[in-house]
Amino acid sequence: MKRTDYAQIERFMLDCMKDSAHDREHVYRVLYGALEIAKTEPDANLDVLVAACLLHDIGRKEQFETPALDHALVGGEKACRFLISQGYDEAFAAHVRGCIETHRFRKSRPPESIEAKILFDADKLDATGAVGIARTMMYSGATGRPIYTRLADGCISDGALSDEPSFFHEYRFKLAKLYDRFYTAEGARLAQERRAIAMAYYDALLREVRDPDTHGKALLENMLTPDE
Amino acid sequence: MKRTDYAQIERFMLDCMKDSAHDREHVYRVLYGALEIAKTEPDANLDVLVAACLLHDIGRKEQFETPALDHALVGGEKACRFLISQGYDEAFAAHVRGCIETHRFRKSRPPESIEAKILFDADKLDATGAVGIARTMMYSGATGRPIYTRLADGCISDGALSDEPSFFHEYRFKLAKLYDRFYTAEGARLAQERRAIAMAYYDALLREVRDPDTHGKALLENMLTPDE
Repeated sequence: MKRTDYAQIERFMLDCMKDSAHDREHVYRVLYGALEIAKTEPDANLDVLVAACLLHDIGRKEQFETPALDHALVGGEKACRFLISQGYDEAFAAHVRGCIETHRFRKSRPPESIEAKILFDADKLDATGAVGIARTMMYSGATGRPIYTRLADGCISDGALSDEPSFFHEYRFKLAKLYDRFYTAEGARLAQERRAIAMAYYDALLREVRDPDTHGKALLENMLTPDE
Repeated sequence: MKRTDYAQIERFMLDCMKDSAHDREHVYRVLYGALEIAKTEPDANLDVLVAACLLHDIGRKEQFETPALDHALVGGEKACRFLISQGYDEAFAAHVRGCIETHRFRKSRPPESIEAKILFDADKLDATGAVGIARTMMYSGATGRPIYTRLADGCISDGALSDEPSFFHEYRFKLAKLYDRFYTAEGARLAQERRAIAMAYYDALLREVRDPDTHGKALLENMLTPDE
């Protein structure tokens, strides 16, 4: 890819995402992760891959404003129109669009081309390990979700038995299940490298909040005296 | 402490903190941590300690609404007035007030009584380990702070060389420095138990964002061709 072409696509991405610095950093992490995976996939078309990575989340703003919209579909269409308007041929634009449309986890719409699979994996890789924990925590903070909720008996839920939104619930139902869903061998390998710290962190956090909760309640019970 | 007295003080705390479920869970973690520490401090007055723990953050709302106010001072005064209005004697109320006033880290106002030291340590314990990471991440998310910022050369800062707010900066300047600031031996011991996971998490997160950033930029450089 020519340097000016990269700069032009990057500029369009930055313009679409100018309200979200966090999302921009995610885009670069996905781009660099994808290039790492692509080293092991000699058939991948790097021009398609770079364009698809840079533009994969440009539909986020539309989805945020209208939650019924799917940012993968909106983004794919926006990217396609932009690329054609800049003189890219229709096959290239359609290929990039296909990658973007299938980067979100949807059973009915799996990634098909190798470039689509690499984008999918690089995007999911950013939800594994310590980064996945950090992004989920920050989203919890931004949306007012708690670290944990309590079950009917007052005990702290580990997230598995409760449907209420919390970090623990998100970890058990989303983050912990990601590792088996990679399409490329290198994506799966990179995800596995990050798995241990995510598990160790979840286990430590659960222990840190649960153990004192159990012991502390007993200590409190012991010191409280009945009313005369 | 009588069961009804505990329930009465707890009710006042819940009333003062009704807008913040997160802060309420912090209060119980501090209370239970303090009771754990108190097991090793036979001279501690548990009634004073329990009242001080339950009421230590009831000045948060006032500080949030008027940032020039110090929630430790506001909370201490509110707690003192409440306890006297409920018939507790002045010495008890003044002791609780003293604990609350010194629970925040201020060189000019260190905790003095053993109950004040235990409250201080239990409150700081909730900023160590995986819990400290989680609370800092969620606060970052709620206030729009990023995980990391970049230095002038475009590289990701580890937080030590940059003054810009970020999770990494908060970790290096606050969380990592907490472990030597405990007043009780048991508080220091409990904090040390949690230190390894916090360090492992920070190291892993830094590595996960920095390594692909460095390699990815090089891979991108390699594939970009000069403009004709």
